[in-house]
Amino acid sequence: MSVFTAVAPETLSCWLGRYAIGRLVDLQGISAGVQNSNFFVTTTLGRYVLTLFEAIPRAELPYFLHLMAHLARHGLPVPGPIADRDNEYLGTLSERPAALVMRLSGKSEMAPTALHCERVGAMLAGLHLAGLSYGRRQDNPRGTAWRTAAAARVRPFLPADEQALLDAELAFQAAVDYASLPQGVIHADLFRDNVLWDGDYIGGVIDFYFAGHDALLFDVAVTVNDWCTTADGELDPQRTAALLAAYHAERPFTDAERANWPALLRAAALRFWLSRAEDFHLPKPGEMVLVKPPAEYRDILRLRIAAPPPLPL
Amino acid sequence: MSVFTAVAPETLSCWLGRYAIGRLVDLQGISAGVQNSNFFVTTTLGRYVLTLFEAIPRAELPYFLHLMAHLARHGLPVPGPIADRDNEYLGTLSERPAALVMRLSGKSEMAPTALHCERVGAMLAGLHLAGLSYGRRQDNPRGTAWRTAAAARVRPFLPADEQALLDAELAFQAAVDYASLPQGVIHADLFRDNVLWDGDYIGGVIDFYFAGHDALLFDVAVTVNDWCTTADGELDPQRTAALLAAYHAERPFTDAERANWPALLRAAALRFWLSRAEDFHLPKPGEMVLVKPPAEYRDILRLRIAAPPPLPL
Repeated sequence: MSVFTAVAPETLSCWLGRYAIGRLVDLQGISAGVQNSNFFVTTTLGRYVLTLFEAIPRAELPYFLHLMAHLARHGLPVPGPIADRDNEYLGTLSERPAALVMRLSGKSEMAPTALHCERVGAMLAGLHLAGLSYGRRQDNPRGTAWRTAAAARVRPFLPADEQALLDAELAFQAAVDYASLPQGVIHADLFRDNVLWDGDYIGGVIDFYFAGHDALLFDVAVTVNDWCTTADGELDPQRTAALLAAYHAERPFTDAERANWPALLRAAALRFWLSRAEDFHLPKPGEMVLVKPPAEYRDILRLRIAAPPPLPL
Repeated sequence: MSVFTAVAPETLSCWLGRYAIGRLVDLQGISAGVQNSNFFVTTTLGRYVLTLFEAIPRAELPYFLHLMAHLARHGLPVPGPIADRDNEYLGTLSERPAALVMRLSGKSEMAPTALHCERVGAMLAGLHLAGLSYGRRQDNPRGTAWRTAAAARVRPFLPADEQALLDAELAFQAAVDYASLPQGVIHADLFRDNVLWDGDYIGGVIDFYFAGHDALLFDVAVTVNDWCTTADGELDPQRTAALLAAYHAERPFTDAERANWPALLRAAALRFWLSRAEDFHLPKPGEMVLVKPPAEYRDILRLRIAAPPPLPL
């Protein structure tokens, strides 16, 4: 679960006086997410999500909050942060950095069809295009520097065959020419549970707290590895084609992206294998996160190496 | 109806390329509103309202668009304008200034109960409080200067008894000490058709194109004259009390506001009597607006003069 810090209704009622959103009607903890405390907050004037940041340094938070505001005002279904009466997005509650964002409607679809994947592909392109005019910059917090460090931390806990896989993949990835790929703001965690569906339409894209500046194609690879993968880790051809074609229609892939597509699918798999292995072998004291099995993304990495998929666009 | 300027789907599809909101799916003219051309626009990524401005000078539009953005980012259900890829809210389409805003859900409630009025009162206070930190300033376009000018234009068309009523009311209003009243951004047209309900909750407050800087109490009076008035023009005691109490709980009335409440109810009635009389007697060439009967607000003015209501808070 993901409520690490308790918030009393009386405390929140008082804190809401800093805003212009009316009186507290209801407060509910949310049992999802992996690194913050989240609450549904209903007031007389609207419905919001309150987040208390447990792990991200305060200095890095304005990048995420202003990014969400930027994307929302470009017409995308991203939860815009709420400014208080002093025009500030970031406050302090229960000794944690805290922010309110709009609550968007819809629910996750864990068994996506090709139509869902088509809409996710178009949405991801919209996020990338709108992100081009975002003025702030912060590196992908799970980018290449983190990858090297996380691999060193995790490696001692791995069996010999996984150590060999890791060493070989790090060497392979070090040779990828990232500078040749279009860069921009990436969501970097656009998994099925971070998209809210309102029928067949996307009502919300949430959880931007892994966003950062990196190769746009890395984001496409993260998204395809989750949305288009079957239970055995293989890419479903129809879903993959639907997602990539819809993305390509909005932001056409470059030659360098076509050439590096198999490598980026591997990089995206490696990133989640490493973070899950770290959560599993090196859990942070006091954290009560849902540990997802590292084996899933280890196997996806192996499959992408064994059968490099083309980008037929 | 309110589509004065036609927009072809092909033209709009091309124009939408300036944004990051995907491809055009559907375009529908909207038969409501009195001075702009409005359309529902559905794209692959969301639902929006397109407005072509037919009457408001282009130089005055940024005030309204940035106000809507300001209120939306303060957590109020106001349709935020959509920024294009160059971060601009205002564009040009079919030779008109044009903007896209978010489409909010809900529908108007034309027979409001005390509960509706309570929520409208709280919402109006929220708008006023959030507006205090808005950085731009533009005078209420239907404020005292307009009133004097409109009265002079309309007076020759009125029968003798209405001319006498108008002359007396203008003299009375000229003596009101507006400077003693708290000022800020007012919506100035918060009628029943400009609030969208999602069940018992307000899902949207729309049509900010009469907004401006003026006495906050004038806005309360405009709102009460519409929401709390019975078919015969009298104030319904329960609805009036509910709206005023909910407003007062968020932004307490001052002594000067209590003293001037009857006068402001009259000022608000006069404003709509004049604008409707002008639309009726002096219709602008080519406009196809729904002319509302001026007699309704003439009678409300007479009733507020005959029985000045107290502000019991």
